[in-house]
Amino acid sequence: MVRMEFAKGHGTGNDFVILPDPDGRLALTPALVAAVCDRRRGIGADGVLRVVRSAKHPDASGYAGEAEWFMDYWNADGSIAEMCGNGVRVFTRYLVDAGLASADPGGLPLATRAGVVRARVGEQEISAGLAPPRLGGPSTATVDGQDFSGTVVDCGNPHLVCTGLSGDRLSTLDLSRPPGYDASVFPSGVNVELVSTVAERHVRMRVHERGSGETLSCGSGACAVAAVVLRDAGLDTGTVTVDVPGGRLVVTLDGDACWLAGPAVIVATGTAHLPTVR
Amino acid sequence: MVRMEFAKGHGTGNDFVILPDPDGRLALTPALVAAVCDRRRGIGADGVLRVVRSAKHPDASGYAGEAEWFMDYWNADGSIAEMCGNGVRVFTRYLVDAGLASADPGGLPLATRAGVVRARVGEQEISAGLAPPRLGGPSTATVDGQDFSGTVVDCGNPHLVCTGLSGDRLSTLDLSRPPGYDASVFPSGVNVELVSTVAERHVRMRVHERGSGETLSCGSGACAVAAVVLRDAGLDTGTVTVDVPGGRLVVTLDGDACWLAGPAVIVATGTAHLPTVR
Repeated sequence: MVRMEFAKGHGTGNDFVILPDPDGRLALTPALVAAVCDRRRGIGADGVLRVVRSAKHPDASGYAGEAEWFMDYWNADGSIAEMCGNGVRVFTRYLVDAGLASADPGGLPLATRAGVVRARVGEQEISAGLAPPRLGGPSTATVDGQDFSGTVVDCGNPHLVCTGLSGDRLSTLDLSRPPGYDASVFPSGVNVELVSTVAERHVRMRVHERGSGETLSCGSGACAVAAVVLRDAGLDTGTVTVDVPGGRLVVTLDGDACWLAGPAVIVATGTAHLPTVR
Repeated sequence: MVRMEFAKGHGTGNDFVILPDPDGRLALTPALVAAVCDRRRGIGADGVLRVVRSAKHPDASGYAGEAEWFMDYWNADGSIAEMCGNGVRVFTRYLVDAGLASADPGGLPLATRAGVVRARVGEQEISAGLAPPRLGGPSTATVDGQDFSGTVVDCGNPHLVCTGLSGDRLSTLDLSRPPGYDASVFPSGVNVELVSTVAERHVRMRVHERGSGETLSCGSGACAVAAVVLRDAGLDTGTVTVDVPGGRLVVTLDGDACWLAGPAVIVATGTAHLPTVR
């Protein structure tokens, strides 16, 4: 039996099990992560955020002088991912709630496998300062039997942002199957965002994440969408409100970083008792 | 903010949030149950099991002399269900683990909305003594484009048990869409079990639950299947091993009750902090 403390939290419906392990003593394995994230036999989440001091983890000790805490992020299937925007927001909420860090006016520095990022803590919202999206050329996705033209965006992971849908079309679209896409453009698959305009610099999106299907929220997808909306308005910087099925995100490109803002809450804390897994 | 103690447990992959509330003080509402069971924004489960003294709940006070504890069971959508076989098993595991009851050789009596049931506690397994299934006539389900003939079974809820599938056919069957059925036989819908024989009185089943889709386990479905297997062997009583996607259940009909046996585990305990809901 593996016994460990945990918290569960989410940002706009993207949910995480947080494992506090300040001194890096927990023997986290892909099998244990998968057992924790199993929604029926475990606690259940989209991924695990281990809270460990940068100095105590080999992947982050080089950042220890700059960022006290390392976000050791794992996907629900036990694979490791470099970055997760909603993960940074929930991780920060946990640190502040648990008294392990306090809000830093300049942004709290956090070590991740994609380098040091910063998080700003507001009353209700937490903002994650991510790398600005890089815009690419056009490509096409096939969803629900219809072709949608879009823009390739690189947020560290690959996106195709398809704007211009009517509100009705966006609401009724069947996203239960993976979109078709140009594999020569996206050799490792793609996250596809379908976008409808609500007002000036305010859009609503649905997203199909590669490997996960339709999800309630995708932080990098919201950033990709904001970059395309600003470009289409002739702007390099600015703020875009992005409604996702799980809530509202606000994305600000300021020339240096892409700030992803929105609610992040801890909904439970406790002790897990899981069968030993190999 | 609603703050409450909870445990999470499962029986063969059928999972529950357990809310200890011995004195019946918790203002449980459909909206709060749905918030607790939300798999991304809450804790997540197939249903809630409130642990309350029979004497302290209006639906169970008449059983107080016979059964100290009432299993106040709610479905994930906030509706109330009378009975849940895997729920009884997980509820009993919680009572024993928490020291609120001890194993009773004659079976621990528990109040439910379907009356008083008994639970037997083994080393690894817990058995729930349920009402014996009542066998009906033939009917037909259409699954994955194929018609399957089966037997109508009433376990308090309606089932159609279709036996005789090959192991390969059972494994490859597409159960992602609701089966077609005869609405004149099942005016309130039906749970459909597809069954393949493994050995004598040992079967493997998959189940499509009305309202839920394919699930990892269905306690009443396993009981229904066992009753059909025994009848086909010319028996009224006996034991049938039923492998479900979430594990192994063993069903024994002894003439008086239908005993549903299998593993039941508590995987986490903690405190939930949920937004106030109405």
